[in-house]
Amino acid sequence: MLRVPYADLYAALHRTMQHLGLKGDRAALCARLFAEATRDGVYTHGLDRFPRFSAMVRNGSIDVNAEPERITGFGCIERWNGHRGPGNLNAHAAMQRAIALAKQNGIGAVALANTNHWMRGGSYGWQAADQGLFALCWTNTLANVPVWGSAAPTIGNNPLIIAIPRPQGHVILDMAMSQFSYGTLAAYTKRGTPLPVPGGFDSQGNLTTDSAAIEASQRALPIGYWKGSGLSLVLDMMAAMLSGGLATHQFPLDPLHETGLSQFFLAIDPANLASAAELTHIADEILVNLHHAPPIDPAKPIRYPGEQVLKIREENLRLGVPVDPELWRQIGATS
Amino acid sequence: MLRVPYADLYAALHRTMQHLGLKGDRAALCARLFAEATRDGVYTHGLDRFPRFSAMVRNGSIDVNAEPERITGFGCIERWNGHRGPGNLNAHAAMQRAIALAKQNGIGAVALANTNHWMRGGSYGWQAADQGLFALCWTNTLANVPVWGSAAPTIGNNPLIIAIPRPQGHVILDMAMSQFSYGTLAAYTKRGTPLPVPGGFDSQGNLTTDSAAIEASQRALPIGYWKGSGLSLVLDMMAAMLSGGLATHQFPLDPLHETGLSQFFLAIDPANLASAAELTHIADEILVNLHHAPPIDPAKPIRYPGEQVLKIREENLRLGVPVDPELWRQIGATS
Repeated sequence: MLRVPYADLYAALHRTMQHLGLKGDRAALCARLFAEATRDGVYTHGLDRFPRFSAMVRNGSIDVNAEPERITGFGCIERWNGHRGPGNLNAHAAMQRAIALAKQNGIGAVALANTNHWMRGGSYGWQAADQGLFALCWTNTLANVPVWGSAAPTIGNNPLIIAIPRPQGHVILDMAMSQFSYGTLAAYTKRGTPLPVPGGFDSQGNLTTDSAAIEASQRALPIGYWKGSGLSLVLDMMAAMLSGGLATHQFPLDPLHETGLSQFFLAIDPANLASAAELTHIADEILVNLHHAPPIDPAKPIRYPGEQVLKIREENLRLGVPVDPELWRQIGATS
Repeated sequence: MLRVPYADLYAALHRTMQHLGLKGDRAALCARLFAEATRDGVYTHGLDRFPRFSAMVRNGSIDVNAEPERITGFGCIERWNGHRGPGNLNAHAAMQRAIALAKQNGIGAVALANTNHWMRGGSYGWQAADQGLFALCWTNTLANVPVWGSAAPTIGNNPLIIAIPRPQGHVILDMAMSQFSYGTLAAYTKRGTPLPVPGGFDSQGNLTTDSAAIEASQRALPIGYWKGSGLSLVLDMMAAMLSGGLATHQFPLDPLHETGLSQFFLAIDPANLASAAELTHIADEILVNLHHAPPIDPAKPIRYPGEQVLKIREENLRLGVPVDPELWRQIGATS
């Protein structure tokens, strides 16, 4: 594994985005969102995702110059059309608009239709929390998980992000509705180690920790079985209905043509409701209690969602950000 | 099992609420919420829950005459204090206020502190959907689930409700963060049948479908393992921080003294954003597709959350609502 300075990673991605046709601030922000995901250890949705992003620009799924447009609104909720622009730029703009609405109204929301994969969903949680706001957001996806009771892919893994601002470290939940992504399943298969918990069904319909068997059956498990299956459905319904956009069943099963997604962004500004001291006190007391829970494995202390990100971020800024050498060579060559 | 006409069930509960000290419309609404949960098949949070409700009135945890009070607000979000009144009345008032705010602003939210168990959480989803609004709401609870990585109860099962209005039948997700409630585990133990999927750990730390072993270890499983554990935490944090109320770690582990809960209610009015025809069309297309998923067991067609409730409701209104004969005798005797 190669480690490169964050500034070099950002600079290479920035040049690459410009080569792909992104202009000015948009190239800079798109590169920053990719670079930050990599810096924070979300490699699958950072640099490693760039080849697919680039392929989708080339095949026309992503229009690098399309900008999101406000279609309508009422009070503190608006509908936007992403015009199939870069998903991370559209999502960032939608969350920023939800934040602006929340600063005026306490709450703000944007339902975004016709967009693309937002890469790391957690980015938009960090975005809101860095500005002192709570946030919830989610996206639909193509059908990559069987609905509970069927073996056929019917629902998306529809990541849900919930962000809680906190001066000493935000709490950021970034959670897909499948127990494991297919990327994670492939990594276990490559290593030849069983999953830590059942991750799906084999082709005979038995729950299994054998990742290869799940890759073969394509029957990944929704979290909590019927519960995550239901949660995935209602997130898809809300995103599509509120945005007026497409739903999971309308996307082709080819990830390179998974475009026109629907997303929902909600921000809550607590500034006019409670003092910063009160909010921090309540959050800190909860997390102190959490950290006091005795771990089963003493080597694995209890952590809150997002806690590990700060450790990885610090390490990657200090030691350099891990990159795939071959991918880094390609990016360097084209940039 | 005894079946009684819905009107008789409601009338008996109404008289009983009056005997407990609830006045006028409050006795009627409290009785209706209990009766409707029973009518809809949520027996654990309907009539069967009345003895615990009654005990908590007697031990002072619930103040039957306390009314919720608006503490502060900004734009479309408000903080309320439930003053430890009946949890279902407080929750109903909070959701109704969120609905009123949403009708004016597109979105409305109420963070409610110092309340009591809301009985069936789905009630407040149906309440919003019956008025044409989307809703999300959740409550915290006492610590009844180990946080992921620990064997000690640290997080609540914090039910989350998401409601989607639809003329031909609302979609209502009503989902606790534990895979099975202790009530459900007890029912499996009584019947002597294994759980359909692993529901927790035995005392040796092995995942098990043996409900009695989980009752003994008190290590119920959060949905999706680490994922539901994280989701439970952030729901507790948001409810406590936004309401200024108590968090899971502050409640005694005795259910009869589980009072002072924090809850969050969010309503979204789509009426000024989209036509009813567009909303219905998108929802219906999603559900038609869902129903087309081939079931693994032909006797178990794929259902959306809330679909079964309408069937049970119709059957219970037609045949009578099932009640525990002994409980029915007691209620009849005191009313």
